[in-house]
Amino acid sequence: MLTNTVPTFADVIDARQSLRGVVRTTPVLESETLSDILNCRLYFKCEHLQHTGAFKYRGACNAVATLAPDISELATCSSGNHGAAIAAAAQPLGLRVHVVMSQSAVPAKIAAVERYGGIVHFSADGLSHRHQSLMELVHEGLTPIHSCDDPQITTGQGTAASELLEHCPSLDWIIVPVGGGGLFAGSLLAASQCATRVIGVEPEGAADTWRSLRLGQRVDNHCPATIADGLHALVGEQNFALIQQLGGEVLRVSEAEIVHAMKLIWYHLRQAVEPSAAVVLAAVARYADRFYEQRVGVILSGGNVDRSRFGFFA
Amino acid sequence: MLTNTVPTFADVIDARQSLRGVVRTTPVLESETLSDILNCRLYFKCEHLQHTGAFKYRGACNAVATLAPDISELATCSSGNHGAAIAAAAQPLGLRVHVVMSQSAVPAKIAAVERYGGIVHFSADGLSHRHQSLMELVHEGLTPIHSCDDPQITTGQGTAASELLEHCPSLDWIIVPVGGGGLFAGSLLAASQCATRVIGVEPEGAADTWRSLRLGQRVDNHCPATIADGLHALVGEQNFALIQQLGGEVLRVSEAEIVHAMKLIWYHLRQAVEPSAAVVLAAVARYADRFYEQRVGVILSGGNVDRSRFGFFA
Repeated sequence: MLTNTVPTFADVIDARQSLRGVVRTTPVLESETLSDILNCRLYFKCEHLQHTGAFKYRGACNAVATLAPDISELATCSSGNHGAAIAAAAQPLGLRVHVVMSQSAVPAKIAAVERYGGIVHFSADGLSHRHQSLMELVHEGLTPIHSCDDPQITTGQGTAASELLEHCPSLDWIIVPVGGGGLFAGSLLAASQCATRVIGVEPEGAADTWRSLRLGQRVDNHCPATIADGLHALVGEQNFALIQQLGGEVLRVSEAEIVHAMKLIWYHLRQAVEPSAAVVLAAVARYADRFYEQRVGVILSGGNVDRSRFGFFA
Repeated sequence: MLTNTVPTFADVIDARQSLRGVVRTTPVLESETLSDILNCRLYFKCEHLQHTGAFKYRGACNAVATLAPDISELATCSSGNHGAAIAAAAQPLGLRVHVVMSQSAVPAKIAAVERYGGIVHFSADGLSHRHQSLMELVHEGLTPIHSCDDPQITTGQGTAASELLEHCPSLDWIIVPVGGGGLFAGSLLAASQCATRVIGVEPEGAADTWRSLRLGQRVDNHCPATIADGLHALVGEQNFALIQQLGGEVLRVSEAEIVHAMKLIWYHLRQAVEPSAAVVLAAVARYADRFYEQRVGVILSGGNVDRSRFGFFA
């Protein structure tokens, strides 16, 4: 349990302890071919192989474990992975979970929320509509779990980078995707006691954290347009404050670069990942000078891509 | 180094020792969804993530390590994975490797042999043509490495099952694909000192080992017809003798079942495997009664599927 509302390195270590045996210690894969192509030594932390298919399960379990015992019904909003993770984490405790999703959410992600017993509420597209629907549920008495501004979630997400650092202690870089900023802030915390630098990546069409860092304050005029549906969220206020404080930097990648990176990962690493996960490799390719001959850990954040996005045996 | 020509359990343990740090200890993945769908507890040993993309690298390294020091040029025949593995294992030693491949071999597998410095010789389709081309190379003075009848290769292949048993000691079954029989014979050896039963799988269109076991003698009239190109080889004589001696049994699966299993593995396990690897899950689905509520380890043998077999972003 967090001792204060601003999480620290020690809280990530505590989260690792409390998640032991609950979350999977996901494998770290290597591919000589990809390392050769991209002129650096790559280590892929496979969070798409985490329970529910995304790192979000880490934060969800960490948050659900510390709920007050009289809480029986939760509400959250999500593009999918966070909602499925909260539903999966809450199911063994008998909690009911309501998830507000946009009506254009990826069908595989809607199905995943329902598979874990979550109740889906559809809202009109757009973050403000999702937020409004969530507020209505909270008004009815449900307990909200915010994906982007809950310190338990942020430290839970940081455990992926912490495991990666234990596996590969001498990394020069860890690269993570940035949506609501929990994985980024948590990873910055996890690496704050060592020489490894953590860098975030956003699609050009959802670069709110990049813009916020340049402006020195969190933007809120955010209209995401990217195939990386998991990165549509606006960075959370507390996460943004942590990212600023810990000197976070964000790189941007294009849609074409994301698609190309998905193909590289599928073909050379033999892994199916979602577009939001592929942004990290897209950044390694685009900013090749920066990572030249460095030891680079990347977090493959999720694998919940829709069947219809891949043709099979075409 | 083997002390006799009929390999034993102890030889598999020796091979594990000598391959330590040379081959990858591949991850063992689980998928609750697949285990639920198929009504058993599944453990996937990911040899498609082995160096060169297949378990063949184990046997190849074990065989190349024990060659006489005056040998400089090797010849073998292969549908691709064995050839690439021998080339990759021999490259650091400066050996030249010639690989006879059929002219209809999967392009990705031809490219893999060449990537590791192997010299490809094309023969007409059919095992007898490949064998004849190999004999011509041997006649020119090259040293042959047989994929299906070299005890070093058989014990090397057995190290995958040995690792899997160490990871999951209480498995009821280990299921492996059967081509030349090295993985099957090696896995039978690896499990010969415990209660885990090892079962082999062949496509209906390449079921020579299944036919041989029924007849009580190795058939040689073999015309494979299956998309599982890695399982075209006729079972080796020594491997067949071992399989018989250790009570091996083979199940058969259809082409449609192989394709369906590839899709299940891709979609739920997020792994791209080749058809030869998918036969193991096809067998779990087809013989569901047999594996009901059992603990089943399957070896995903390779991932060298051709780009053209998958449509991408169709």
